Amino acid sequence: MPISVNKRAWTLFEALLADADTLGLAVAAGPEGEVLVDAAPAGIEAGLRIAEICLGGLGRVAFGTDAALPRWPATVTVASSQPVIACLGSQYAGWSLAHGEKPNAYFALGSGPARALARKEKLFAELGYADQAEEAVLVLEAAKPPPPPLLADIARACGVAGRRLGVIYAPTQSLVGSAQVVARVLEVALHKAHALHFPLAHIRDGIGAAPLPPPHPDFVTAMGRTNDAIIFGGRVHLFVSGPAEAARTLAERLPAATSRDYGRPFAETFRAAKGDFYAIDPMLFSPALALVTAIDSGETFRGGALDPALLDASFGAG
Amino acid sequence: MPISVNKRAWTLFEALLADADTLGLAVAAGPEGEVLVDAAPAGIEAGLRIAEICLGGLGRVAFGTDAALPRWPATVTVASSQPVIACLGSQYAGWSLAHGEKPNAYFALGSGPARALARKEKLFAELGYADQAEEAVLVLEAAKPPPPPLLADIARACGVAGRRLGVIYAPTQSLVGSAQVVARVLEVALHKAHALHFPLAHIRDGIGAAPLPPPHPDFVTAMGRTNDAIIFGGRVHLFVSGPAEAARTLAERLPAATSRDYGRPFAETFRAAKGDFYAIDPMLFSPALALVTAIDSGETFRGGALDPALLDASFGAG
Amino acid sequence: MPISVNKRAWTLFEALLADADTLGLAVAAGPEGEVLVDAAPAGIEAGLRIAEICLGGLGRVAFGTDAALPRWPATVTVASSQPVIACLGSQYAGWSLAHGEKPNAYFALGSGPARALARKEKLFAELGYADQAEEAVLVLEAAKPPPPPLLADIARACGVAGRRLGVIYAPTQSLVGSAQVVARVLEVALHKAHALHFPLAHIRDGIGAAPLPPPHPDFVTAMGRTNDAIIFGGRVHLFVSGPAEAARTLAERLPAATSRDYGRPFAETFRAAKGDFYAIDPMLFSPALALVTAIDSGETFRGGALDPALLDASFGAG
Repeated sequence: MPISVNKRAWTLFEALLADADTLGLAVAAGPEGEVLVDAAPAGIEAGLRIAEICLGGLGRVAFGTDAALPRWPATVTVASSQPVIACLGSQYAGWSLAHGEKPNAYFALGSGPARALARKEKLFAELGYADQAEEAVLVLEAAKPPPPPLLADIARACGVAGRRLGVIYAPTQSLVGSAQVVARVLEVALHKAHALHFPLAHIRDGIGAAPLPPPHPDFVTAMGRTNDAIIFGGRVHLFVSGPAEAARTLAERLPAATSRDYGRPFAETFRAAKGDFYAIDPMLFSPALALVTAIDSGETFRGGALDPALLDASFGAG
Repeated sequence: MPISVNKRAWTLFEALLADADTLGLAVAAGPEGEVLVDAAPAGIEAGLRIAEICLGGLGRVAFGTDAALPRWPATVTVASSQPVIACLGSQYAGWSLAHGEKPNAYFALGSGPARALARKEKLFAELGYADQAEEAVLVLEAAKPPPPPLLADIARACGVAGRRLGVIYAPTQSLVGSAQVVARVLEVALHKAHALHFPLAHIRDGIGAAPLPPPHPDFVTAMGRTNDAIIFGGRVHLFVSGPAEAARTLAERLPAATSRDYGRPFAETFRAAKGDFYAIDPMLFSPALALVTAIDSGETFRGGALDPALLDASFGAG
Repeated sequence: MPISVNKRAWTLFEALLADADTLGLAVAAGPEGEVLVDAAPAGIEAGLRIAEICLGGLGRVAFGTDAALPRWPATVTVASSQPVIACLGSQYAGWSLAHGEKPNAYFALGSGPARALARKEKLFAELGYADQAEEAVLVLEAAKPPPPPLLADIARACGVAGRRLGVIYAPTQSLVGSAQVVARVLEVALHKAHALHFPLAHIRDGIGAAPLPPPHPDFVTAMGRTNDAIIFGGRVHLFVSGPAEAARTLAERLPAATSRDYGRPFAETFRAAKGDFYAIDPMLFSPALALVTAIDSGETFRGGALDPALLDASFGAG
């Protein structure tokens, strides 16, 4: 039976809807019965559950405390034994969704299992993964749902009826935004491994953790913190097959500190780049600390280190 | 659909009953069919599940290890995105239950969701929360269940049939007592925030952690340890709306060390006060360390610190 | 209702089968319909769930990060309020299963709830625990399933039909092997407590944690690492009844460092003993650090310490 990230996510989505009131989620219906979930008013618990939905039900997202970063004990942990499908096939925010013209244009990057039905991204050819399902769940780091024509396009691209399309959205500045975005600590590592041309099929298992970033009302600062939680406070442990030398290289090159743009809070980097993401070194987007175990040789390699001082600079010293 | 702490708790209560034998719980029926659960013989697992019941099913209670207090690694973590209803509307031990005359008098402080049906406390007028449910669950830090006439009074006050009233009780000295009482680390912070006149409606989310206190056969010492686990070892992170200045003041004033009675194990303080709770500074009852994030400004404030030496003095240096 | 570790485990086993594809488990049927689960291709998540099955559904196995061993943050936590039945009555690998002659001989040590039906070990007389169930689950640290005649023997010894026998197997060198074996940190403590003649009936509750060992393709090195994760990195907290003096002695004698064979990676010790397990001091098999709380006196005793340097020597410094 092939893995269906949408079928798994839909079960979790229905459970989320059943708890909408206690979680503080506002649920509305779109014109074709799309299930639109505004997660902006909700909290950390909803953020963790949305993160599990975003992983296509293929990962555990948990909350705990950890003394690794003593000033920021609240820690989000992610683990997946299907890290490539969970993180790149589902969670990665890679589906560019746009509608209309300025000043009324809508733009968002779609993440979550619906991507694996629509398969609009080049990445899917490399992943060799396609989902088949009659329901689709999309997660958006956005303050508003897609406008009706875009919703119709999304359902069509996924091949599902409108009422079988769930869309969860919350802005970066919200508690849900903080929680669900920092739960991408493992995904960010996988995405960079891919950028470094490490063979994805060799990534067997992965775990990650990062401090929960305090939200900020300013979008750039909030986005900066979610990135910095990973760049300065994220740690991952990947278990890979294949040659030890490739694992060693991956561990050395994975950490954010290898980037030429490392060294200050992300919001500053972003402002210095005048808000042009493509002017920022893509190698910056990765965890602070990486362990890579080469399971065929038994060796573990490590690179990078947590950076509590820069984390404080980003999160606010308080 | 309004939030019902009793409906949510009843589902967890039924699951608890289904595992009664493996958890070590002794279940008996009261004269009107009340479901009486003696949790004294049970262990930590039961304590954590009872803590989730006590939170009205609105919080996660988990167990893990944390190096923040290296000599006491076992740590209980609590998180709730409905902290006011969960902690003050349900978990807080605020319902005074008394029956009979000395030497046969029965007295206990009722906690758990049943409080939100009976609403005997002034606090409920401020909370603006009332539950409506046909079942009620009460949790007592006590060695014995309420006597039959008191049980009848409780059911009547809650407006439920006797057989729809669940009462879980365990003394402070038991493992369940240790676990479920230390799981109040977040509630204690909310209660003190309330005493400090911080607007409860501004408390949006909260997480807390504290070391699991080793039980002690002496009531005062056992009670002292559950308090000290929070006073010397508890940490909370609150996410609040409203002005940053109020968040700063809350973080500064929340920690236990701000109390005039801070500085020795609670059992000593209690004995020095000749067992008169009302002679003890109420500001003592709060976590050691507080982080407060003002989500409207993005600032995080902190106050207090963990106190491993006084924790050792209370828990026993071993 | 008596506790049935097999009934509890069977429910978890069926849930495991339902997730076989996403977990990476290969399921096959034996000649009499035995459900054979090859867990070698699976990952950490499967390992944790198999560990809970191995505990007869009487323990929680969780994954998190912990700064106690900063170079190896990935940590497996185990907790059980029925530690004697869960760990010794179910999880302990004590059932010697052998079939055939060299060079085609099959040998494995059976662990998991099936042991409590077969009761082939002297230990069961002391435990005073026997299960009654129509289904049985066996867990093997092995690369292959038992050959058909041995499967038939196992089913017969358990008194179950072939199709009601589940066998999960994974070699020590696999990710599942790493995860499910290190989840024995509490069991190892109980087994040593038994060897030290501490009365098992006095062990009321227990928790344990240990770093996840990186797997190694060489059997002896892999086995060494799973042992060393416990010997150098394991910590347990037991809650016991009875005299404080017995608790003190247990805490002093429990840690691995009390063994004459302590001081180098286990694979070296094993090779120095020419692969003869019985030449190795059995007192070596225990956690690095032990806390024992005597609940009748309220005292907590501790012995041993984590040993990050030897853990690095075993896991590979990287």
